[in-house]
Amino acid sequence: MKTDYDVAIVGGGIIGQSIAYHLAKENVSVVVLEGNAVGSGATRAAAGMLGANSELDDDDAFYQFAKESQRYYHTLNQELFDLSQVSIQLFDRGMYKLAYNEEEAETLKRALPMNSTLEWHPREQVLKHEPTLSSDLVGALYIPEDGHVSPVDTCLAFSKSARFLGADIVENVPVHSIEKTDEKDYALQTAKGTYYSKHVVIANGVWSHYFLKNLDLQLGMKPVKGECLSVKSDKIKLEKTIFYDHCYIVPKGNGKLVIGATMVEDDWTTEPTFGGIQSLMNKMAPILPDIKYATLLDTWAGLRPQTIDGKPYIGQHPSGEHLYFATGHYRNGILLAPKTGEMMANLIVGKQVKKEYVEAFSLTRHIQQVMR
Amino acid sequence: MKTDYDVAIVGGGIIGQSIAYHLAKENVSVVVLEGNAVGSGATRAAAGMLGANSELDDDDAFYQFAKESQRYYHTLNQELFDLSQVSIQLFDRGMYKLAYNEEEAETLKRALPMNSTLEWHPREQVLKHEPTLSSDLVGALYIPEDGHVSPVDTCLAFSKSARFLGADIVENVPVHSIEKTDEKDYALQTAKGTYYSKHVVIANGVWSHYFLKNLDLQLGMKPVKGECLSVKSDKIKLEKTIFYDHCYIVPKGNGKLVIGATMVEDDWTTEPTFGGIQSLMNKMAPILPDIKYATLLDTWAGLRPQTIDGKPYIGQHPSGEHLYFATGHYRNGILLAPKTGEMMANLIVGKQVKKEYVEAFSLTRHIQQVMR
Amino acid sequence: MKTDYDVAIVGGGIIGQSIAYHLAKENVSVVVLEGNAVGSGATRAAAGMLGANSELDDDDAFYQFAKESQRYYHTLNQELFDLSQVSIQLFDRGMYKLAYNEEEAETLKRALPMNSTLEWHPREQVLKHEPTLSSDLVGALYIPEDGHVSPVDTCLAFSKSARFLGADIVENVPVHSIEKTDEKDYALQTAKGTYYSKHVVIANGVWSHYFLKNLDLQLGMKPVKGECLSVKSDKIKLEKTIFYDHCYIVPKGNGKLVIGATMVEDDWTTEPTFGGIQSLMNKMAPILPDIKYATLLDTWAGLRPQTIDGKPYIGQHPSGEHLYFATGHYRNGILLAPKTGEMMANLIVGKQVKKEYVEAFSLTRHIQQVMR
Amino acid sequence: MKTDYDVAIVGGGIIGQSIAYHLAKENVSVVVLEGNAVGSGATRAAAGMLGANSELDDDDAFYQFAKESQRYYHTLNQELFDLSQVSIQLFDRGMYKLAYNEEEAETLKRALPMNSTLEWHPREQVLKHEPTLSSDLVGALYIPEDGHVSPVDTCLAFSKSARFLGADIVENVPVHSIEKTDEKDYALQTAKGTYYSKHVVIANGVWSHYFLKNLDLQLGMKPVKGECLSVKSDKIKLEKTIFYDHCYIVPKGNGKLVIGATMVEDDWTTEPTFGGIQSLMNKMAPILPDIKYATLLDTWAGLRPQTIDGKPYIGQHPSGEHLYFATGHYRNGILLAPKTGEMMANLIVGKQVKKEYVEAFSLTRHIQQVMR
Repeated sequence: MKTDYDVAIVGGGIIGQSIAYHLAKENVSVVVLEGNAVGSGATRAAAGMLGANSELDDDDAFYQFAKESQRYYHTLNQELFDLSQVSIQLFDRGMYKLAYNEEEAETLKRALPMNSTLEWHPREQVLKHEPTLSSDLVGALYIPEDGHVSPVDTCLAFSKSARFLGADIVENVPVHSIEKTDEKDYALQTAKGTYYSKHVVIANGVWSHYFLKNLDLQLGMKPVKGECLSVKSDKIKLEKTIFYDHCYIVPKGNGKLVIGATMVEDDWTTEPTFGGIQSLMNKMAPILPDIKYATLLDTWAGLRPQTIDGKPYIGQHPSGEHLYFATGHYRNGILLAPKTGEMMANLIVGKQVKKEYVEAFSLTRHIQQVMR
Repeated sequence: MKTDYDVAIVGGGIIGQSIAYHLAKENVSVVVLEGNAVGSGATRAAAGMLGANSELDDDDAFYQFAKESQRYYHTLNQELFDLSQVSIQLFDRGMYKLAYNEEEAETLKRALPMNSTLEWHPREQVLKHEPTLSSDLVGALYIPEDGHVSPVDTCLAFSKSARFLGADIVENVPVHSIEKTDEKDYALQTAKGTYYSKHVVIANGVWSHYFLKNLDLQLGMKPVKGECLSVKSDKIKLEKTIFYDHCYIVPKGNGKLVIGATMVEDDWTTEPTFGGIQSLMNKMAPILPDIKYATLLDTWAGLRPQTIDGKPYIGQHPSGEHLYFATGHYRNGILLAPKTGEMMANLIVGKQVKKEYVEAFSLTRHIQQVMR
Repeated sequence: MKTDYDVAIVGGGIIGQSIAYHLAKENVSVVVLEGNAVGSGATRAAAGMLGANSELDDDDAFYQFAKESQRYYHTLNQELFDLSQVSIQLFDRGMYKLAYNEEEAETLKRALPMNSTLEWHPREQVLKHEPTLSSDLVGALYIPEDGHVSPVDTCLAFSKSARFLGADIVENVPVHSIEKTDEKDYALQTAKGTYYSKHVVIANGVWSHYFLKNLDLQLGMKPVKGECLSVKSDKIKLEKTIFYDHCYIVPKGNGKLVIGATMVEDDWTTEPTFGGIQSLMNKMAPILPDIKYATLLDTWAGLRPQTIDGKPYIGQHPSGEHLYFATGHYRNGILLAPKTGEMMANLIVGKQVKKEYVEAFSLTRHIQQVMR
Repeated sequence: MKTDYDVAIVGGGIIGQSIAYHLAKENVSVVVLEGNAVGSGATRAAAGMLGANSELDDDDAFYQFAKESQRYYHTLNQELFDLSQVSIQLFDRGMYKLAYNEEEAETLKRALPMNSTLEWHPREQVLKHEPTLSSDLVGALYIPEDGHVSPVDTCLAFSKSARFLGADIVENVPVHSIEKTDEKDYALQTAKGTYYSKHVVIANGVWSHYFLKNLDLQLGMKPVKGECLSVKSDKIKLEKTIFYDHCYIVPKGNGKLVIGATMVEDDWTTEPTFGGIQSLMNKMAPILPDIKYATLLDTWAGLRPQTIDGKPYIGQHPSGEHLYFATGHYRNGILLAPKTGEMMANLIVGKQVKKEYVEAFSLTRHIQQVMR
């Protein structure tokens, strides 16, 4: 068993796999240590919406990073397939963010100046494109760039590509502790034995909270559980993702509509509840009247890792040690995985990273904010 | 391939398998012709409630038959296990039929004289036994004898026992037509070839409608689709089946609570719908408040075969031919399967059958009723 | 319930759905009557290999038809997605047909003149492309055009597109009989009621056998059961489909390798057997040594409809009636679905169909062959 | 969130749940901290065989403990059902340990003096009871007491009963570290926060290895991966568990035959492999010839925790601290869960425990053995 690596990544979700892939491309020796199965956490639960414009409100570094990550998927699509023969299922028909009254419409229209691709579609235009939507809407913000991928397939494409480029991926091995050693920089202890690495990246979603606390950071994360359901229907013709009141309906390329998601704070359970699914149904049924005839296929849940300000931590431990975090992606883990992987690889191998991004996602940003 | 039998049974659900079992016990050569997989129709969708007292309102032959069938399960339990090594999962903790106001209570209390085992439990007594029920109920009718079995396991136990006693069971073979021939009594045509038998029993649930019509009977059946869901919960302590407003919560022996069922007439689809499950959730949530925290496990649906008067057809074609029907069991297929199988076997081998039962379930009863 | 149509199609697999789609495109009023669920038979069991060159040996009309159908998928890919938002998952990295000795190599090389795209790759070249194959092979026929699709997704894309163009699709309704009537051309009887149509197309795979027999044709079909398994592996790097000794390994775009298939004649069961999967494993393990480390994901089975000469029946009943067959596609149902749908639609609406194809797939070809 | 308990149990498999149940019965305040879902590790993978006589060779304390645990299941059966309404699916038709030659027969016969219930059945007697076994056997050791339960249902029955008696069970919370504190005895750190308890029991199977090492014990465990498959068959009539060459066929009460298990040392993966299932099939097919026709239902795998001498560690940390281990149950976790739970509860509350058992399972036994 090989136990010495340049980089050890704690967490084998889509974030960890993207980092592993980008490091392996740079010929860095890397191991991913995953406590369960690859992609079995928040990755598996996500709908895969690439909602740079739908999820983010400000034209700041976070938004720019998200847009770059969204566009990067168009390159990765072929690149990952060539390496792994896995298709990430990138679909690109855009999104409608609905308004049911003038107030909602005004709020949505405020985004138009942010991005020249955005359009406002009045009621008739929306219904012409999406005739199965309930007709009592006022209009919708059309976001042509907010498509979607399959989170599970994307995670697998990163993972297989990383492995074919030399990365090792170990499952069922929770990392208990990360300690500095003399000869080797870090020792990661697991039931399977100890792994050693010069750099460590902590990327295990809400479970990163332990290491944030344990490594003397006055930061933390909490889980925001999201429950989803999927249906299929031959009555519903839906081309674009539909977004309303933090919830969405994503028409996946296999004919399933993924509907999500609830927001349950501080709940560590990962199974969909009767009450959560019930509330989601009652909330979304009015938007798409024919959904009552749709076949209910599946329900599931996962834990989004939420930081204090809702933005991820992507960066180095403030001590300057070779300890990095890439976690706290909240509702945007799939969207941000490509650029997170690239940025983290660049930080580790010493390539340049945009200063705005380093600052925006730094672990010390809260302190800085207070100091300003 | 053996193609000549004493009896051919069209339909391999729990009714067909019970008939096959009872005939095989009598050393009758029998084949079951099932269009799909054994038990894949209404059998698989049922909750398995043995609701003689909860489902039936009158103290008539139908009720007596149902009670006998319910009690017969206690004999079959061991008998079928000894033959097949399959447990039917008979649980016997009784049922509570809830009343939320005095009117409902009065209606329920009217059943007390029908059966000396019935008891009326006022609110406090109910909540003592079932503390997780919502506390705003008035009382409940306690029905100690209405337990439940696993429909799939019971169907399998009948099927394996029948096979070990010599019956043949053929799957994926829809019967297109049943015709009288010269030499052999009946020819049943299928894509796999023609099967011949002296007697034919039609027992394929709502799909029997075709043969009822085709064999010159002015009778018919319609599907009443039922949708169900199952949950598990460590917060809910439920010992008895709970019944309210045609719906039920059955605490199965594997820790699952089965909740059913919608009633959708003339719908031939067999998948659970968004709208059906939503309505079931909204209806049952108030009865068991903690169910909102329960894990949603599964949803499914099936088609109950409903006759004109809601009672099954168990008997001979009025022509006097060796053509029999055992279908139309509506909400009570699992409950009635044991006695239906026994009665049909007795009719075919010429053993005595109670005259009240022959009349109650005869295919000509509607005409007779009109003539009276 | 609408019951009058121009065309009724018996069978809702990929063949029936392709016919429905092509008819609906011609504005023909069409209903598909499916006994179970859409695509639940041979369609669901297929690996989706588009093996025009790998499955067919002669440069005849059948081969030309298959090649046209294969190429037609490249048009349908976008056309069906635009209509249905369902991706057929067309992957197009070609196939290797392996030779393990000189005799096998000579046999494979004989195909080279049939198609200018074919290439012979000697051992080193094969292993360079597919390094995880066992190294004791002699060489491989490289077939660049034999890609694959997802059968389930393709069937769904046809089905949804047909429905959006106006076709009706009814599930759980086995057709018992097809009879000529006076006013309307055909009456199709089902448990749900009688459907009427001017034309009938029988397309329910091996279950078409009943209608072939029943409609006075001295033809027939038998099932050839095929069992498959799927695995996933991060050790196996496979880009092309691998074909050897009638079996194949198809690297699907979701990272699964589909391995099939056994050939069990006259077996009507549709579940994978211990013995069938065992034999498939023992046969394919030597070809891909690292497969022993692969995760076994799933096993399944289906029934291929095989005619007397192994070619499908696509054409009109010899009586000249408006009764058509599109069945008997054996190992090539997915490959041939596009052109079968187009040809059948053309036959019905009176558009021109290549004479060679009409003859090659006619229901009277066996009689003609005998007469020659 | 309650965080202070008398006892914290690390690991929510059947061992942890049995300990929690027995402690809760003693009114001890207890929390189970499980890294994934309750019963998702070795518990879920086990066949549930209660093989006291089939698995153990010597008439020592270990064997006595196993026999007591086996018999204890007959009490727990009703006790757990009354509390939890979950049936453990205890079946009690015994076991045949097969001999295919005289040498094997002699080895098996040596066990006869160990237990007066054991019988030797010659070939004819075996085949009379189990007619579908291959007929070339010499005879079999009949072990009437070695029945089986459902591991998942038993774990659930313990878990629900424990919870109804007041225990807390927390999922998705891996315990990173266990440290002594001043005010409270132990602090268990997790991503969800810190739990405090006076006693700690480590019971998370092979993952306990980390704590054995970390808590200064020169002991360890390794995983022995076991792969299984299940089939169903109407041709195979099997009443007793069949045991041969470390493998077994268990006829479960739902008609499934569970066949296991491979033995792969030091493999931390938890998915069934192509090669493992293939070897199991090739090994077991000759024992039950008709199994080749059986429907293959499922395959799975799990990790058995194996100690140096193959016996579990059930006892206190040698330091005398309030730190306990209940792990290393290897192939016998289901069998030993009842008595392990009872013994651990007795140790913690200070009730008497047989000295032979304390010694047999002590963590210092290896040192003692060397010293003798």
